[in-house]
Amino acid sequence: MIGLDRLSLNQATVRGLDLPQAADLCARHDIPAIGLWRDKVAASGLARSAAAVRAAGLHVSSLCRGGFFTHADPAARAAALADNRQAITEAAELAADTLVLVSGGLVPGSRDLPLARRMIADAIGELVPAAQRLGVRLGIEALHPMFCADRCVLSRLGDALDIALQFPADAVGVVVDTYHVWWDSGLAAELARAQDRITSFQLCDWVLPLPADVLLGRGHLGDGTIDFRQIAAGVLAAGYRGYAEIEIFSQQVWDAPPDLTADTIRRRFSAQLG
Amino acid sequence: MIGLDRLSLNQATVRGLDLPQAADLCARHDIPAIGLWRDKVAASGLARSAAAVRAAGLHVSSLCRGGFFTHADPAARAAALADNRQAITEAAELAADTLVLVSGGLVPGSRDLPLARRMIADAIGELVPAAQRLGVRLGIEALHPMFCADRCVLSRLGDALDIALQFPADAVGVVVDTYHVWWDSGLAAELARAQDRITSFQLCDWVLPLPADVLLGRGHLGDGTIDFRQIAAGVLAAGYRGYAEIEIFSQQVWDAPPDLTADTIRRRFSAQLG
Repeated sequence: MIGLDRLSLNQATVRGLDLPQAADLCARHDIPAIGLWRDKVAASGLARSAAAVRAAGLHVSSLCRGGFFTHADPAARAAALADNRQAITEAAELAADTLVLVSGGLVPGSRDLPLARRMIADAIGELVPAAQRLGVRLGIEALHPMFCADRCVLSRLGDALDIALQFPADAVGVVVDTYHVWWDSGLAAELARAQDRITSFQLCDWVLPLPADVLLGRGHLGDGTIDFRQIAAGVLAAGYRGYAEIEIFSQQVWDAPPDLTADTIRRRFSAQLG
Repeated sequence: MIGLDRLSLNQATVRGLDLPQAADLCARHDIPAIGLWRDKVAASGLARSAAAVRAAGLHVSSLCRGGFFTHADPAARAAALADNRQAITEAAELAADTLVLVSGGLVPGSRDLPLARRMIADAIGELVPAAQRLGVRLGIEALHPMFCADRCVLSRLGDALDIALQFPADAVGVVVDTYHVWWDSGLAAELARAQDRITSFQLCDWVLPLPADVLLGRGHLGDGTIDFRQIAAGVLAAGYRGYAEIEIFSQQVWDAPPDLTADTIRRRFSAQLG
């Protein structure tokens, strides 16, 4: 269904490694693409990071992340926009397929979900010219509803898509992350509606029990409850031809030797999606 | 907006109390209705429980709970149906406004969400004649998507409503629980679609950080991020005229003196919904 030539490793999955080490790991395990994180890029330097991924022969499937647009304070809002413009510059320099946006939770002190969603749409609108000028596609990610209050008020793929569709397709799309959207009875319909708007396909599994604070509860493909084949079929049917990026936030995975993690990722990818 | 004459206390909020004690607590604090749990009813005996709530002058706004319909094993499935028929009998004896259904997660060993949803619809269909015969309304509850895998594959109010609408309105409706549905950008539209199908309105707040296993992360109204006034407006506009039932799963609330809890509930209810 999806071959290993479309596999990407998001470096958050091996977060004990710096960027050159993560690039080496991908090269060593025949993983042709990598998803990068801005803190790791900054730690190695932007130019050196771009050189390291080029030297390893890797495609950059995503840069994580921009976003966090929901601020009542005008100064905080301006700072967020400036930081996102910087992120767009970095994504262009790294030739990343998309800049992933985690858009932000409720505005501090507010319980107004529509207000937060409007702020996100407004902020993305302000970023579109810079994205188009530099040829970067913004990828709006829907996060699982359990992150609605504090990380992202866009809880369904359809919420992200409703905003993306307000802007040109070359500038704004959506990120499909299995962990965040697998539960949604309307997912297949939203994938069909997304068509060429999908800028990134991220995968990890839903594993119970959830740990406290729920951020690190994710697992290798096959360790949990997600029907990857079904979701991937919808993503491919929509027309997506990019990479399938494995991104796992898990203390257990972080504690494992990176070569074991890379090996597990390849095997599970083939088993679940081959 | 909603007066204290429509307040109900779900006894899970004061779970250190037995049923007669919980009924006394309601009477002492001028709370006119109570939501009951089957284990507490069983512990006190069905007839004695019915007598206790009558003696305290209480209306029974709900009986929790039936459901858990998703089994591959025919014997387990038959046992679930038998248990639900028993629950319907109990709800009738207690004159409860609704029997709350927590419908079940993925079928063990399966990742097939549509299969689980079909099993739920089939099971409810088998229960409708008993519900109609005894004058009990089944209330299908949508649970937060973080419970999709293990407790309920109906994750949005619309998922529950799609099933309820397959059956007569006098037999099957939906439960609106703020904790489970507050994040949904489509909630207002689903409430409008629900009309007279709402059999129960349950309330508690979304409080961060979530604890491990996430079941007990709930809070008093006002302690979290939910806009109760907005949701209540939709529930009332749909035509709901029943009770607003406070149901809080929280170790902190369980550790508090029940009279303090009841007092806090009344004050917060007035502040958030008065």
